[in-house]
Order: sequence, then structure tokens, then C-alpha cells
Amino acid sequence: MTLEPCCHTGRTGPCSSALIEAGVSRVVIASKDPNPKVSGGGIAALEASGVEVFFLQDFENSARRLNRGFFSRLERRRPFVRCKLAMSLDGRTALANGESKWITGAEARSDVQRLRAECDAIVTGIETVLADDPAMTLRQAELGLNAQQLVWNELRLSNPPLRVVLDSRGRLSETAKIVTEPGRCIAYRLDGANSFAEASSSVEARLAPNTGESPSRVDLLSVLESLAELDECNEVLVEAGATLSGSFIEAGLVDELIIYIAPKLLGSDGRPLLGMSGLNELSDAIEFKVDSLEQVGADIKVTLRPR
Amino acid sequence: MTLEPCCHTGRTGPCSSALIEAGVSRVVIASKDPNPKVSGGGIAALEASGVEVFFLQDFENSARRLNRGFFSRLERRRPFVRCKLAMSLDGRTALANGESKWITGAEARSDVQRLRAECDAIVTGIETVLADDPAMTLRQAELGLNAQQLVWNELRLSNPPLRVVLDSRGRLSETAKIVTEPGRCIAYRLDGANSFAEASSSVEARLAPNTGESPSRVDLLSVLESLAELDECNEVLVEAGATLSGSFIEAGLVDELIIYIAPKLLGSDGRPLLGMSGLNELSDAIEFKVDSLEQVGADIKVTLRPR
Repeated sequence: MTLEPCCHTGRTGPCSSALIEAGVSRVVIASKDPNPKVSGGGIAALEASGVEVFFLQDFENSARRLNRGFFSRLERRRPFVRCKLAMSLDGRTALANGESKWITGAEARSDVQRLRAECDAIVTGIETVLADDPAMTLRQAELGLNAQQLVWNELRLSNPPLRVVLDSRGRLSETAKIVTEPGRCIAYRLDGANSFAEASSSVEARLAPNTGESPSRVDLLSVLESLAELDECNEVLVEAGATLSGSFIEAGLVDELIIYIAPKLLGSDGRPLLGMSGLNELSDAIEFKVDSLEQVGADIKVTLRPR
Repeated sequence: MTLEPCCHTGRTGPCSSALIEAGVSRVVIASKDPNPKVSGGGIAALEASGVEVFFLQDFENSARRLNRGFFSRLERRRPFVRCKLAMSLDGRTALANGESKWITGAEARSDVQRLRAECDAIVTGIETVLADDPAMTLRQAELGLNAQQLVWNELRLSNPPLRVVLDSRGRLSETAKIVTEPGRCIAYRLDGANSFAEASSSVEARLAPNTGESPSRVDLLSVLESLAELDECNEVLVEAGATLSGSFIEAGLVDELIIYIAPKLLGSDGRPLLGMSGLNELSDAIEFKVDSLEQVGADIKVTLRPR
């Protein structure tokens, strides 16, 4: 088992009891459950019943990686955060006039659908909603899954990711697609913001504190902690514009950065990839490590971790 | 043979005669020599002497690719042009203050040395020379070649690439490294430019016409044609700044684009990758096709061809 079987009753009964009752004589475990309700208790319960338990230490990192969102939520009290960006070869996301639709190809967009399928919540900003009115939904037809894969993914497809809008001043319209599409939509706003959302049955409005530095912006760490605590989000996908994506990165809250690069040049007056404060020295640059590099259709996909 | 054996006397005697004298009975050829002095004449000479000639049509494209610089010079009367760029993950080449030294790592810089070893001339702009004073030399120690590879590459190492500066207004200083390092340095300038270079024994000054559009810039196609004609350059490497690189690309003169991407973020006030005129529509974007994608040390190397 990648994760220690639990010893408490959650939505289902304790896994360790089920193993004992089933007469299993030897259990191989690759990682301990960080949940304080378990944390070795599952192993102890198995051993107390005479089940041999072998801890596969060499695979602990691989097992933790498989369950990285779960470990993040339990150990750091916030979800594992992936941030997805798309740009041209010269680091531009749109023309100066804002035109940006379909910079990358169909295969890359289908790949983004799979990223959405892997997360518990998609986080975006109100500026993106106002500018592009994205649906931020999981579209089964675009997932590129075969019949068998669709069966395996049934649970996820029937339980699509939450759609989360950082909407400090309460500007989210009830007619925005991100609100009207089936599924839950949560808006985080500051105290004193417009309050339409409280009266709306389609949007769950939540208060968030502002950042210490900017009184007009919600604090990103608080939002993540809230999603972990209230919605048990293990993994979050940030699909936002240059400013919000840059803020997540600058705050050190991005655990994985995924950049799709379209092999075309938009020129130096195109819109920049990220809104980030200026650097005084090269040594201040935010550094990453390339995790994987692949072609997706005609485009390039780079997956990176913070260094 | 990848290329049809010649039938004329150049620096050496006709290859077809050498094959006939050696008693070779069958010759397999993958591409015809585009040189008007040959162009089927080598094949005719072989066949007239009873040598069987087989033309391996299926490999013609591969053979032409191996000798792409030669074909470009003979057929298009200009060299095959590679343009090398280095940037951060967000498409920046330097900080706002210009600090840019060593954005990419040692392995990528060693890879650039190999690009230099493959070309006949390195082309740069006077702005880059004035700003960075680059040597633009081939440094054997940085090539990362083993003893056997060094022997194979002896010819190239003993005959390093020409260093070419586009110096419209004659601002190149005799003390610039690109001038003082061993090897030939050629400066292209406009009529009426400063004339120090004519008196210098280290710089070969050449006149070039201006572009029709900008009276203060040398015409890039003319420079390439001159390098093909006067110096028999088959392959040229453009290692220049954002403006000159952008001009080569916009003029449609780049046959291969090589971008090294350092996995770090410099922020939106960093210097842009390319100085190119603004686009009005996404469909005007200059498009490429990814030819290869690899990691070089900690950096990413993307090789692209125009679409």
C-alpha cells in the first residue's frame, strides 16, 4: 500500500480493521499516514493483530509524490498548488491589444483539461473572469480518454473541481459562466466588498483577510488554507492572468509550474507572462528545476518545481 | 556518397576521376551537386567510364540536410543561418538594468561553443560589441570534446569561424576583443561611416548597402550574400541582441532558431527577447516548428525551423 491503512472511521470504516478481518497476513507500506488520527496507529493495530508489517522505505518519496496533495493538506494545512501558464516563444501571453484566444493548439488545451481533472479546485482571478468569461469546467470530450480510462475516472468526472474566484471587491457577476455552469463556485472577497454573492444561490461567498502588504487584495495563503480546511482540497490548479499567477509565485506558494509554449513570436509589445516586481540583481531571480519537457502537439510543455 | 562526386578542379582535382582511377565499379549517390560546374557532370563522367551509378532518392532529403549549408550557398547564394538566443522562462534576456551575464549554465555555454564550431562565420551587431565586448571565439577547452573528437575536429579548430560585425556607422574600436583575438574579423558598414577600419590591419572593412526601409542599417541579405560569395560561408551563426536578431527573423532570413531557456523568472521589467514590430492580429505571429527539445544541464534547448 502506498499509504499506511487508517485506524479511524471517516466516510468509511478503518482500513486496518478491514485488512485484519480479511485475514491478510503481511502488509507492505510505503508511507506513514500523516493524519494525527492515524500516524502509526494503523501499523500498530495491524501488528497487534499479528499481521506482519513491512515498511518499504526506499519507495517513501515515490509514494509521497503519488499522494502529494494529501500530504500537503495534512502536513502543511494547504493544498499542493500547480500553476498553469501558456505563452509564445518570446514569453508573451497576448498581443498588446489583448488578443490571446488559442495561442496554443488543441492538444495543449486537451492537456489542460487533464490538469483540471487532477485537481480539486481551479483558482482564478476576477480580472480573468471579467476579461475572458471562462467556464473553467471539465469537458469530458476534450479529455482525450478512451472508454476504459473514462470508467477509471468516473468518480472525478462526476465530482468536478470547485471553481474558485479571488474577487476582492465583489465584482463577480451572477451571469458569468464560471458561476452559471453546473458545479460549485466559491468567491473569496474582502470585508466591505459588494455583497451580491451572499444573496446568490450559485456562488458561495467567503470572507478572506487582505494581504498585509496590499489592503485591496485577498491573502493567498489564507485562501489556500481555507480550501484545505473547508473543502478538503488536496490539489489546486491556478489558471489565472499575469498578475495573480505572479503573486502566487512571488509568495512562494506554487509547488509546480506548468508552462505551455507555442512556437511562435508575438513581439516585444505583447503582454508579459507574469506581473512581478522588478529585480535588482540576477541572483534575486526566482529559480526552478525542470521536472519534465515534452512536445504536446505543436507546442512545448515544461513542468518545473521551485528550487 | 552523400553528394555527387565533382568533375572539375577546385582546391583538389575532380573526385569522379579519382574514383575511376581507383577502379571503383559502383557508386551510390544520395544527392546531386547543385554546383553548375558539376550538376550531373560527375555522374556522367562516371557512367562514361563504365562505373555503375545508383541514385539513392529516398535519402536525398537526409543528404541535403547534412550538407544544408553547402546547398544553401549554391542554390540560394547565401549561407544557412542559425540564430541563437538565450532567455529566462519568462522570455527575458537581462534585467532592466542590463545585467545579463550567465543567465544560462556552463553546459549551455559549452553547447554554444559547439554551435560556433559548426559555423563558418559568427555574425553580431555593434551594439552587442559595445555593450558586452564579447570575444566570439571558439574555446577548445569549453567544447567538451574527448581526444578522438578533437582529432576529428582538428580542421575546424585550426580554421575558426570568421567574426562578423554589422557596424553601420563605423563605431567598432580596434581594441574590442572581437577585433584583437586571433582570427579574421570583418566589419560591414555603410558608405560615409567612420573609416578607422580601413586603416586597421586587424579588421577587414566592407561596404554594404542600407536596407530600403532604414537608411541607417546595413541590408542583412546583402551581408549574407557577400559572406557566401567572398568567403564561401556555408553556415552562419547569428549571436546578437534583441534588435538585430529580431531583424534577421522578421526579414525571413533565419533557417534555424536555437533558444536556450534558463528555468528562472526575471520579471516583466526585464529586457525582452526580441525587438520586433508590434502585431495587429495573432495570425500575423511568426510561426515555427519544433525540431528538437532537450535539457542541457539545468537549462532547456529548443531548436526550431520557420513554418
